[in-house]
Order: sequence, then C-alpha cells, then structure tokens
Amino acid sequence: MGSFRVIHGPNLNLLGQRDPNQYGTLTLEEINEKIQAFAKSKNITVDILQSNHEGEIIDAIQNSGGLTGIVLNPGGFTHSSVAIRDAIEAVDVPVIEVHLSNIHGREYFRQTSLIAPVCQGQISGLGHQGYILAIEYFIRKIISL
Amino acid sequence: MGSFRVIHGPNLNLLGQRDPNQYGTLTLEEINEKIQAFAKSKNITVDILQSNHEGEIIDAIQNSGGLTGIVLNPGGFTHSSVAIRDAIEAVDVPVIEVHLSNIHGREYFRQTSLIAPVCQGQISGLGHQGYILAIEYFIRKIISL
Amino acid sequence: MGSFRVIHGPNLNLLGQRDPNQYGTLTLEEINEKIQAFAKSKNITVDILQSNHEGEIIDAIQNSGGLTGIVLNPGGFTHSSVAIRDAIEAVDVPVIEVHLSNIHGREYFRQTSLIAPVCQGQISGLGHQGYILAIEYFIRKIISL
Amino acid sequence: MGSFRVIHGPNLNLLGQRDPNQYGTLTLEEINEKIQAFAKSKNITVDILQSNHEGEIIDAIQNSGGLTGIVLNPGGFTHSSVAIRDAIEAVDVPVIEVHLSNIHGREYFRQTSLIAPVCQGQISGLGHQGYILAIEYFIRKIISL
Amino acid sequence: MGSFRVIHGPNLNLLGQRDPNQYGTLTLEEINEKIQAFAKSKNITVDILQSNHEGEIIDAIQNSGGLTGIVLNPGGFTHSSVAIRDAIEAVDVPVIEVHLSNIHGREYFRQTSLIAPVCQGQISGLGHQGYILAIEYFIRKIISL
Amino acid sequence: MGSFRVIHGPNLNLLGQRDPNQYGTLTLEEINEKIQAFAKSKNITVDILQSNHEGEIIDAIQNSGGLTGIVLNPGGFTHSSVAIRDAIEAVDVPVIEVHLSNIHGREYFRQTSLIAPVCQGQISGLGHQGYILAIEYFIRKIISL
Amino acid sequence: MGSFRVIHGPNLNLLGQRDPNQYGTLTLEEINEKIQAFAKSKNITVDILQSNHEGEIIDAIQNSGGLTGIVLNPGGFTHSSVAIRDAIEAVDVPVIEVHLSNIHGREYFRQTSLIAPVCQGQISGLGHQGYILAIEYFIRKIISL
Amino acid sequence: MGSFRVIHGPNLNLLGQRDPNQYGTLTLEEINEKIQAFAKSKNITVDILQSNHEGEIIDAIQNSGGLTGIVLNPGGFTHSSVAIRDAIEAVDVPVIEVHLSNIHGREYFRQTSLIAPVCQGQISGLGHQGYILAIEYFIRKIISL
Amino acid sequence: MGSFRVIHGPNLNLLGQRDPNQYGTLTLEEINEKIQAFAKSKNITVDILQSNHEGEIIDAIQNSGGLTGIVLNPGGFTHSSVAIRDAIEAVDVPVIEVHLSNIHGREYFRQTSLIAPVCQGQISGLGHQGYILAIEYFIRKIISL
Amino acid sequence: MGSFRVIHGPNLNLLGQRDPNQYGTLTLEEINEKIQAFAKSKNITVDILQSNHEGEIIDAIQNSGGLTGIVLNPGGFTHSSVAIRDAIEAVDVPVIEVHLSNIHGREYFRQTSLIAPVCQGQISGLGHQGYILAIEYFIRKIISL
Amino acid sequence: MGSFRVIHGPNLNLLGQRDPNQYGTLTLEEINEKIQAFAKSKNITVDILQSNHEGEIIDAIQNSGGLTGIVLNPGGFTHSSVAIRDAIEAVDVPVIEVHLSNIHGREYFRQTSLIAPVCQGQISGLGHQGYILAIEYFIRKIISL
Amino acid sequence: MGSFRVIHGPNLNLLGQRDPNQYGTLTLEEINEKIQAFAKSKNITVDILQSNHEGEIIDAIQNSGGLTGIVLNPGGFTHSSVAIRDAIEAVDVPVIEVHLSNIHGREYFRQTSLIAPVCQGQISGLGHQGYILAIEYFIRKIISL
Repeated sequence: MGSFRVIHGPNLNLLGQRDPNQYGTLTLEEINEKIQAFAKSKNITVDILQSNHEGEIIDAIQNSGGLTGIVLNPGGFTHSSVAIRDAIEAVDVPVIEVHLSNIHGREYFRQTSLIAPVCQGQISGLGHQGYILAIEYFIRKIISL
Repeated sequence: MGSFRVIHGPNLNLLGQRDPNQYGTLTLEEINEKIQAFAKSKNITVDILQSNHEGEIIDAIQNSGGLTGIVLNPGGFTHSSVAIRDAIEAVDVPVIEVHLSNIHGREYFRQTSLIAPVCQGQISGLGHQGYILAIEYFIRKIISL
Repeated sequence: MGSFRVIHGPNLNLLGQRDPNQYGTLTLEEINEKIQAFAKSKNITVDILQSNHEGEIIDAIQNSGGLTGIVLNPGGFTHSSVAIRDAIEAVDVPVIEVHLSNIHGREYFRQTSLIAPVCQGQISGLGHQGYILAIEYFIRKIISL
Repeated sequence: MGSFRVIHGPNLNLLGQRDPNQYGTLTLEEINEKIQAFAKSKNITVDILQSNHEGEIIDAIQNSGGLTGIVLNPGGFTHSSVAIRDAIEAVDVPVIEVHLSNIHGREYFRQTSLIAPVCQGQISGLGHQGYILAIEYFIRKIISL
Repeated sequence: MGSFRVIHGPNLNLLGQRDPNQYGTLTLEEINEKIQAFAKSKNITVDILQSNHEGEIIDAIQNSGGLTGIVLNPGGFTHSSVAIRDAIEAVDVPVIEVHLSNIHGREYFRQTSLIAPVCQGQISGLGHQGYILAIEYFIRKIISL
Repeated sequence: MGSFRVIHGPNLNLLGQRDPNQYGTLTLEEINEKIQAFAKSKNITVDILQSNHEGEIIDAIQNSGGLTGIVLNPGGFTHSSVAIRDAIEAVDVPVIEVHLSNIHGREYFRQTSLIAPVCQGQISGLGHQGYILAIEYFIRKIISL
Repeated sequence: MGSFRVIHGPNLNLLGQRDPNQYGTLTLEEINEKIQAFAKSKNITVDILQSNHEGEIIDAIQNSGGLTGIVLNPGGFTHSSVAIRDAIEAVDVPVIEVHLSNIHGREYFRQTSLIAPVCQGQISGLGHQGYILAIEYFIRKIISL
Repeated sequence: MGSFRVIHGPNLNLLGQRDPNQYGTLTLEEINEKIQAFAKSKNITVDILQSNHEGEIIDAIQNSGGLTGIVLNPGGFTHSSVAIRDAIEAVDVPVIEVHLSNIHGREYFRQTSLIAPVCQGQISGLGHQGYILAIEYFIRKIISL
Repeated sequence: MGSFRVIHGPNLNLLGQRDPNQYGTLTLEEINEKIQAFAKSKNITVDILQSNHEGEIIDAIQNSGGLTGIVLNPGGFTHSSVAIRDAIEAVDVPVIEVHLSNIHGREYFRQTSLIAPVCQGQISGLGHQGYILAIEYFIRKIISL
Repeated sequence: MGSFRVIHGPNLNLLGQRDPNQYGTLTLEEINEKIQAFAKSKNITVDILQSNHEGEIIDAIQNSGGLTGIVLNPGGFTHSSVAIRDAIEAVDVPVIEVHLSNIHGREYFRQTSLIAPVCQGQISGLGHQGYILAIEYFIRKIISL
Repeated sequence: MGSFRVIHGPNLNLLGQRDPNQYGTLTLEEINEKIQAFAKSKNITVDILQSNHEGEIIDAIQNSGGLTGIVLNPGGFTHSSVAIRDAIEAVDVPVIEVHLSNIHGREYFRQTSLIAPVCQGQISGLGHQGYILAIEYFIRKIISL
Repeated sequence: MGSFRVIHGPNLNLLGQRDPNQYGTLTLEEINEKIQAFAKSKNITVDILQSNHEGEIIDAIQNSGGLTGIVLNPGGFTHSSVAIRDAIEAVDVPVIEVHLSNIHGREYFRQTSLIAPVCQGQISGLGHQGYILAIEYFIRKIISL
C-alpha cells in the first residue's frame, strides 16, 4: 500500500514541554508511536526523522526516491526556507505540510508559509492527528475512495 | 458517534464545471455521496448544505446546537466575511475549514483566511478528501486515537 | 419628537452568548427592552431590526423615508461592506454607527470602518448605552441643547 | 442576434437620488428604458435584474445558460466579492463589468476591482451609455466588425 | 453622583474660529457652559481644562485620584502621543475619548487613534454633544440604566 | 457630428506581432482602417497618431483645440506618466482611455492607471472595438441617446 | 511693509554645533542678526522665537493676530506634530515652512512633513537664506512684484 | 554676477489655462517676463527653456557648463524621472527645484520628489516668486549675505 | 570616575502602579535609591530627572556639558520624538537608551525606536538593572575592562 | 558569428565625469573602443547607440530585425519605463540588461528593474566588462560552449 | 553563583577582521578571555560556543538543562530564524540577546529581531561589554541588588 | 592567473531534474565539467563545492584565504541568509553572485537578494554560462582588458 516518510522539523523533539496550549501534551515519542500504530493497522511502512538542521531536512527530501509520500512539519523553517521549498519542487514525491497548532491564528509571521504553495496541501491545527490524516489521504487516493 | 454538518459555500454547486485543474472533476452531488457513504461506514449522521448567500451560512452556523462538529468550505467568503468569523466564534460547536484546492498556492487574495483563526484547524488542497478527513478528525478525537 | 430605527447587524442575535468580556452579558432582547423603555420615557417611537443578511440591511436603510435617524450596528459588515456604505450615502436620513465593544482596541481588521466616514458619527465601546446615547444625540440636536 | 442579461448591483435602484455628480440624474427605470429601446433597435432581447443581495447576483450569473453575454454593474460588491468573481469564472458566458462613474478617480478602495480580472473587459465613467456600449461590443464581435 | 474632568487638547481654545464645517460655530467657552449646565441638571461636578502642552495633559490625567471619569478630547495628540496613552493605562479612572468632528471621514493620518485602544470607548462626529453623552454614559452606568 | 483624435502610445505600431493572446492579431494599420470605416459611416472625421515618445503625445493632447474628443491608448505610459495626466487636465477636450487588453487581469504594475482619474472614463479588454465604442460614446452623448 | 514672526523649533539653539555639513557653521544668534539686518534694510519688523517645547510653538502661532506672516522652522516637530498643523490651519496668518537642510535628501522619516500641507509653501536646503527668502516672498507679494 | 538657466518642464506652457487655483493666473510668458525683469535689475543673464520632452530637459542640464545655477521646475517628471535625477548628479552646476503649487498638500503621488534629493534645495507653493527667490539665493550666496 | 545624568521620561513617576507585569513593582523612588547606592559604591555622582514634558527632556540633554554619560529612558517619546533624537545628535555626551520592559516583545508601535540609532546603544527588558548596567558600561569603558 | 547592438541609456554619455566610485573612470568613448576591439577579436559586428530620449531607445529596440542580440543599459529608465519593457517583449531579438554599478547595493528605488523580467538575463556591478560578457554569452551560446 | 553559556552566532569567529567600525578591534579569542576573567572574578563558570550552523545553535539552546542563563549573540540569524526563537521559547533557561554593534542604527533588515521578543531582554551597541553586562544582570538578579 | 572557488548552494545537486524550463537540462556534473574545461583553457585552477547546508557555505567563504575570487550561486539562501551576507562582507576575496535562471522574472520573494549588495556584482538568467562569465570577469580585470 506504499511507504512513507514523516519529517519533524526543528524543536519538535521538545514536544510535551513547549507551550502545551499550542502543541498539546504528547511527547514526540508518543506521537511517533501513534503514527506507527496507524501504519501497522493500514499495512504500510513509515520512517520518521526529526532534525534541527535545515540542511538535513533538505537531504531527507532529496533522498526520497521510491516513497509514496512525505508528511512534513517544517516547524520554524516554514516561514523562511526557500531552500526546503526548492527541494520539494525538485523531487517527484508528493508532500503534505502539517502543523500541530493552527498557524493561521498565531503571530503574524507564522501565518504565511513559503512551503505550502509547492505541496499537495496543508493540514493545520489538528494536533498529532494531522500526520495520520495526511497519510490517510495518500491511502484513500491510491484506492480511489 | 456524533452528528455533523457540512456547509458548502458559494459556487460549490458548480463543481465539475469550474476549472477542473483546481477543483477536480467530481460534481457536488458525487462529493456528497462520498461523504454520506463515509458517514454510513462510521455510523454517524451528516447533514449537508450549499448556499450562495452569506446570511444563510451564518444562520446555519448559528443553528448548530447539538452538533458534534461543522465542516465548512466558505468558498469566496473565506477572504472577506468577518460576519461568518463572528458566527463561528459565538457558537460552541468546533469548526474545521476545508478547501478543495491548495489556497496557499493561488492568487494573493486567496492566501489569507479571515475565518481560519477562529476554527479548530484548516485542511486545504486535498480535494473532496478534505471533508472526510475533517470528520475523521472529530471521530478520532472522541475515541482518543 | 421623531421616529427612529435601530438596526442590529449579523450575530448580534447571539448576544449574551458570544465573548461576554467584549460584548457584555445582556441578551439582544434585554437590550431592545432598554431601548424601548428609553424611547417611551422620551416619547419617541423606535422600530428595531436584526439581520444576518447584508441585503436586508441595505433594504432597511433604503426604506427609511420619514425617519428622524438610524442607529446602525453593522457588526462584521463594518469592515467589508461598501454596499451598506453606499446605501447610507444615498438616503437623506442621518445614521450613527454604534459598536458595543471598543473596536479601536481589537484585532487589526476591526479597527477600520468602511461605513463610519459616511455616518454622522460613531460611538464605540460603551456597550448597549451606545444605542441610547445615539438616540439621545438626535433628540438633543432637535431641541438645540 | 443573441440574448443578454443586465445585472444592476446594490443601491442602483436609488439612481437619480444618490450623488448626481457621480451617477447622473436618470433613474434606474429610465436607464432600463434606454437599454430596452436600444435592444429593440438591434433586434435582440435583454432581461434586466437589480438586487441588493450578493447571493441573488451569484444565482443570476450561475443561471445564465443560453445567454450571449452578461453586462454586470456590481456596485459596492466590486471591491469585496470573491464569490461573484468565482461565479463568473465558473460559467461559460462572457461578462463585461460596467460602472456609471469613473471608479479610477474616486476613493482609494473603489479603484481596485476583484471582479474585472475574470471579465472580458471593463467600461467605467461613461454613465448609462456603458451598458449600451457593452452590448454593442457583443454584437459587433458576433458580426466581426 | 460623581465628579468628572473634561480635558480639551491643543487648539480647542480656538473653537468657533477654526473650520466651522468640521468643528461647529460654538466657542470653547460656550461649549463649557453647556457642559456645566448639564452637570448642574444632573447634580454632578465637572472641572474643565484646556492645554496646548502634551505634558500638562499627562499631568492632568495622572492627578485624577478620586474622579469618577475623564472625558478627553486629545486633539492633534490623538495620532502621535504614546505618552498620553501610557498615562491613561497607568491610572484607574476610566477615560472616554471624544472628537467634535467625525475623524473616520477625514485625512488618513486622523483615522487612527493611539489613545482609543486604552479608553473605555470613543465618541466622534457628534459635536459638543459628545462631551455630554460621555458624561451621561458614566451616570447611566452608575445607576445601571 | 464632430472631429476626433485617436492617439496610440508606445509599441502599438507593433500590433499583430506582440503577444497575440493579449493584443489580438490585427495590425495597427488594420485597426486604423476599421476606425476610419466607422468614422465614415458616422460622418465624422478622425485623425490618428502613433508615437513612442511621451513628449509627442503630450504635444498632441495640448494641440487639440477644436476637437470633440480624444481617444487615448497610453500603452506603457499609463502607469508612469504624470506629465500626460497633467496635459489632459490642462485642456478642455474630454479624453477616454482605451486599452486593447484587460489591464485589470494582468501584471500588478499594469493595474493602476495614473491617467484614468482625469479622463472621462476608461474602456479595457474589448480589443480594437474599444476605440470605436469610445467614439460611439461621444456621438451618443451629443445626440442625447 | 508689515510685521513678521520667525519661529525656530527644537534644537535650533544649538546651531553651529550640530552636524555642520547639514546645518552650516553659523550660530542661531548669527542667523538672527542676518534676519534683523535684512528686516532693517526692508523697513519691516521681525520678532524671533526659539523653543524646544511644542506647546510654546503652538501658543506662538495662535497669538499671531496682526502679523503679516510667520516663518516657521518646526525642526523635529515637522514629522510628528498634528497639533502644530492644526494651529496653523486655525489662524488666518499665512505660514511658510523653512528647513536649513534639504530634508528631501535625508533619512526616510524626515522626508514627509505633516505641517507643509497647511502652509503657503516650503523652502528647504537653502540654509539661513531660507528665512530671508520667505520674508522676501511676503514682501514681493504685497507689492505685487 | 553670474548666468542662469530656468527650465520649465512639461505642460508649463499651458499656464494661465490649467487649474488657476493651483497654478495662478499668469501665463508662462508673463512669468518669464517677470524673471527677465528681475535678472535685469540684478545685472545677471538668464536663459529660459520649456519642454514637454524628458530627453530635452536632460540635454539642457547636461549642456550647462559655465552656468552659475539652474532653476528647474520638473513638472510631472518630478515624481518619475530617475534619468533627470542622474543628469543633475552628473553635472557640477547646482540646481534648485521649484514648484508653483505646494506639492506637499496635493495628491499622494505628487508629494515625493525623486529629484529634490540631489538638488541644492526645493521651493514649493510660492508661485512664480519661487523662480525669482531661487535666483536670489544664488546671488546672495555669491556675495555672502 | 565621572558624573552622570539619568533621565526618566513620561509616566515613569507612576512606577509600581502601572502594569507590574511589564514594569515591575518598584516605585521610581526605590529605583532611584538603588541607582544612588550603586553610584556611591562606585564613587561617582549621578543626578536624576523625571519629566512628562518633551521640551524639558530636550533641555536636560542640551545642558549636559561636562557629564560623562547620560542614561535615558524616553518612555512614550521613544517612538515619536524626532526632537529628542536631534538633541542627542547635537551634543557630545554619549547616551544609552534604557527600557524597563522588553519593548521588542510588545505592541507593534513600541518596537521601533527613533532615538536608539543616535545613541551608543540600547538596553531593554532588564528592569531597573538596565540603568545600573548602563552606568557600569561607561565605567568599564573608561578603565578599559 | 552574428551582429549586435549596444544601447546606452540616459546620462551614460557623461561617464568618467559622474561619481567615479560607482561608474568607473572610463569615458563612454573609451568603453565603446573596448567593445569594438572585443568585437573585432571575435569577428562580429556591433553598432552602438547612446540616447537620453526614452522614445529613441524604444525605436532602436523595435528596429532590430536581423540582429543576433541586444545589450541594453537602460540607465535611469530601468526603474520606470514600462514602454521599454513592452518594446523588448514585442521583438524577437534577445536582450541582456547591463548595469555598470551594482544596482542591488544602491538606493532603494534602483533595486527593482521593470525591464529585467522580460530580458534573457541581467549583469550588474561588473563595470564595462558587463557589455563584453553579455556579447560573449551570445557567442558561447551559438557555438554551444 | 551559577553557571552560564555564551553562544556566538555565525561569523563572529572573524571578529577583529570584519568592519572594525561596527564590531571593534578585539578578536573573538580576546573577547572570550575577557568574559572568562570576569567569570573568575565573580566565581561563576561560563562555557562558550561559536557556530556558523543554525542547527548547532538550536541544539546548544535545547541542551541547557541546569544552566542559570544563556547569553546569545545570534548574528545574522537574528533576523530570519524562527527556529532559534522556538528553541528559546521551549526551554526554561532565561536568555539575553546581545549585539556588539547598535543594530537599531544599521541597515533596515537588521533593525527587527525575531528572537528578542522571547528573550528576557536585549543589549546592543555596547561592544564586548554587552556579554559581561548580561551575566552581571543574572548575578545581580539572583542576589536581589 | 589565479585560483577560484565555485560554490553551488542548496538543491543545485538536483540540476537536470528540477524544472528544466527554469534551470536547463544539464546536470551539475556536466556544468562542473564545462567550468573545469574553461579553467584548463585559461590556465587557472577552480575548486567546486555543493552544499545544502548554510553553515557549510559560510565555512567555505570564510576559508578562502589566497583565492582570487569566489563565484557563488546561493540558491534558496539568496533571499533569507544574512549570515552568508556577513561572511562575504568579512572576507577580502571578491564574490560574484550567479543565478542560472532570471530571478528578476520569477516569484516575488525571489526578486530581492540579501547577498548581492555585498558582492562585486550579479549575473542572472544566463544559465551555466553565468559561472564561466564570472570567472572570465576576474581574469579580464587582472589583465586590464
């Protein structure tokens, strides 16, 4: 049914600790477990990556040959990284941008994404479910639901 | 498992006809059938409304007592209607904003939503799946997945 | 001493329910009773209208022949409706714009009124008293206080 | 030679009354008579609609199957209605936007039209002749003048 | 029933002389007499101050212990004085901002008030009645009308 | 019935060659023939000028004594020439601005006209018919149609 | 031949000391002597005022009854004082704004004057001659040169 | 005592005809006579040029070797001509920019001068006296008044 | 070791009273005692001034001959006073701008300082310690630590 | 190997004289000699034009049939001439924009080029070499280096 | 008395070499020695880090458990790194932002800090003393000076 | 004749794959071969680096002692990296910025370069020839062509 990559951007390794009102109380490990449980139930494989380094995220997007889809939470790079945008544009794998919090209701500089325009779409504000719904989208599309 | 309302804003009754590159080839009727099929599979009830009139959409949001959630595609009202925003803020039912196309990659005036900041979240660019994933979110949240 | 019309714009029918910090705890019915009590004490007649439909508000302004003054709370239409502005400009009856909350201290998009420039004046932040003070103004002006 | 629809937007029913310097002294009825006289002389049929309700204008654009062209004066909706824009984009009938006054020489917010970019063209500042010249355009185009 | 202070900002001592279309034909003395007559009729005390000096207005706001309310027409300082804003924020007495003319319909730089956001509310465009209505508001609030 | 001048601005001598999607396939000569044929049918005289030089266009506007009207396509000068604007303001002959393409739907810098505010009106997007409709307007106005 | 007032705004008492490239090497006393010498040669009287206090400058403009003209260098108040602007608008005496340095070629915030729009005119960049030329203007105008 | 050039930009040949409220009732010829009378009284020579062509004005600035000063009214080129600015920067002769009307109190686009930053200074709003005062400045500077 | 002046701008006399979250709980008197205790420990002299009047602050900066350094908290004048900026530029004494609260994290209009660019530097957000650290800087610089 | 045209825009005839820090010490004649020497060494022909007139530059671009490429330094027209842009768009010959100075590091208004978007590319900051490298590019492209 | 971390951002390893007017003549090594000498005198420990990699700086902020405070000079990342901002917000250790030069008086893009709003405060323009004063602040706060 | 470094920024390793309309069909390897062939023909040495990591590019610029020149294509970092800008400013080696595509004709955010202002110059839109022409420039400058 396909293989996927989930990329968590900078500071998401601190989840559960940073402003729980915005980001929820789950740790990154707990979120990843939920993603893997979902993957198992759907019979797909998901590899998961977290990095605070823009370059490593670019590399991970570039090295995505053979994947069915990428789910990317670019964190703070969302609003400044033309380079991540260019990486997404250059590869053939479709990408969905996910944000835990509803960025449209936060500080002004968080409301514009440089990256979303070159993605398949964006899910924001739905917490860790965003990652799972993004994968669900890819699956539903493949089997034409 | 809950009851839901899907509100389609202006011009969505023309789906299948308007710019298929952006909006897909399904008609609104076909999308609604998919939503109802999903609802049936999940054992929930969904009522669906389409209107070209801002006031009717405000009324439909105000009269949402007892619903578990609203899925709203505000169409062209997304970018200008403070009144729909105020209606969402005034009721207790959570709302998810959905867009068929990826509004973040379109004309400048389509990239800012007046409505998203008062919603639970926003899904854009995932076609008709956006409606279904929004309902899926409400269900997963209730059963704490 | 004159006859007046009070027009409440969209979502004001939900008063008492929506964000009491901004809008107070009175329901619209209670506010209307206070307005009518005041009218009685001053020996004037006031008709009161609430609508979530921009077109109905335009109609109500257009059909104001014979009135001494209009008190208009345009709600969310304040910031986007050139059409209501044009209606006010086209009729001879003076209009005072009223806002329950102090719009000058709220979100950026609420701080500019498209409608105020063609009104006699604007009262904001004085709660339901704003409606009564606006009518008081018309009366005081007639008797040259 | 074709059948046409003329749509007058909000407040145009007050013509002859609102600021004659900008809008001229003719009433809407008188303008419509001139349009019908022109239609008769050209052997075409024109149906004419005026509405203060955005939703009704959207409906009238959507229900235009079989028409040769639409002449639309969106009035105050010109500057705020993405929904009317989307309706025009979704139908196959060509639309010409007409303004009685020269909007390019008026208040700042009147100088940008959200609607013109999806129309065939725009005529402004030529008073009631604008409607007639728009129809003349459609006729001349059909007979390749 | 309370004691009040009315503060007239810069150039209001010239009333009756400066642009009567905007500011009316009454002199400041005549306006003050009307305010005092109103005060007498309501059995309250009002002290009145006019100054062209920003610092004196700040002092007058700071020295307001024991007052029930302040009615402030900041004149030209409305649009530039963060210091007056800070003074209002720092004291406990509620302040209502009043403008004789409708500032929302004037030059661009007059349409934004730095001071209104920290006031109870704002009344503009109602001439000298604005001062009296502001005091009326305080009285009505005390006796819960 | 009057005498007219049509002024074609810079690069319009290249018509038929430059981006036919925007400007059509007719050459300037062919357009001028259509204008002259129309003039003949209406029994009026039209002189036609094309120039790539801003100063020559200013001269042609200044030397318009005795003309009934000017039809001006300012081309690229539309968006930058205060001097042409001033020339139009200084003479008594009414001017209509014409654009072959629909400038409201093109690049951002083409959407604002410095010249239109001082013209009688503007016609855009109606191809070469724009010139003829502008003259038609002048004629209809003279004979009060 | 008339009597005049020259008002030097804040920090002009430090002339000769502050950035001589911008403001020249003359002290304020030396400039005033040149102004008085010129006055004597023209048989007019000039009184001269310097103040660092906005309120004092407003007072000096208000108390100008009987003067033929005021020459005002508002210094740093040029860019922020709506109150000085209002004072000039309220009195009948014509005012010319003078700047020693060429403000149009300096920091961005110095390039816009809130005050110039209500003055007779502005002279900038001509050093101390600006004061003298402004008075010369008033004299030449009186004797119709 | 020096030789000078006065350059009148586009449309100034129409003076006396264009908006007398802004530009006065004198014709360009009458203004030039006043300038020459002044020149004679001061024993200097002035040559005077008017052109509607930006290139001719650039040429006239470039060919200014041996002149003591240039007085330039750039008219509508003030706000758009980087090329005239560059010409002034490239020659050694000092230039004073003159405007008949007070550009600081007119339309927004007239309030910024691209040219003034590279001039000695700017005089605006003093009518034809502006030209004479500019020359007076050069003379006073030479004889160190 | 030098003599210093500390200038507290408008409303700082209310410290301890105004928004303690932003400004702390110390009164101005208590802060001044801490500054003097520090001065004593360092064997320097400090004179301290508070004023709500922009002009008095300008005077205090101008009369600073012989001082080693000035520590200035311009309060609300930070964002609007070009005149205080000019005073600092005109004197030889170095100035450090201090803010009790972290202005970079507050309202938009508080984030830009007109005054900081002409100071030696700026300290913000460190409460009353900011004054002491500023003096410490001057001392450390003198003895080349 | 092809024939080329080099077009020097306004004020470039003054090279060697205007601000040598920005533009170098070579005169235009010396630069042209270097270009011709290069042309000779490459066995190509280059004709060279300088003009201060926007219209002449448009003419020169329009009359470029048969040329291999144009090298254009638009000087001050870079930032304002939509008409030159349109000329380039209308002809088939590729154009490279060249600037002697690095416009990206200069005044704000010099950093945006209206013309570059319709050129093959832009070279800036490389002095007179820019012209030669632009021609070199055309040659290398032809022989597929 | 606590342990601290000083983080030097990109290019600070080149100190002494880059623009000494802005950054001083000390090398980074010399600055670090001064910091360590100060630490010794205060009996505290300081570890010091320099990195040109945004990700390494994020890591260093995240791994700050047990520290009393961080002193961060984010260099060029100050103006673009939302990710560093998010790291600071997520950890409990207070951070003070330090800049060697006075960023408020430099290029426009250097005047806004994305990072300062989530720091305790900011010190800029005080050279290497800024680091020491920041540590001094932490110490003084602990012992309640 | 000198030694050079070519630095390819993020995503340039994907050349040949990403949008060939913008970037051409050559792979990075093929471009590098062309650069080395050119180097050989000119008897110079070039080392070539590609990195997706901003920090590595900063390091490569800092470690450029002894090089004659750097040719830098900053890719997506062009528009956001103040840190790369600072590195270039801090070293003595001249840098030329190169872009394969014509960035001036692309998305808005690609049209401004933070880096170009501190480079010698910029070449854009000339494909892989841009690298070679940049080196050619350095060579021609050394031998004074």
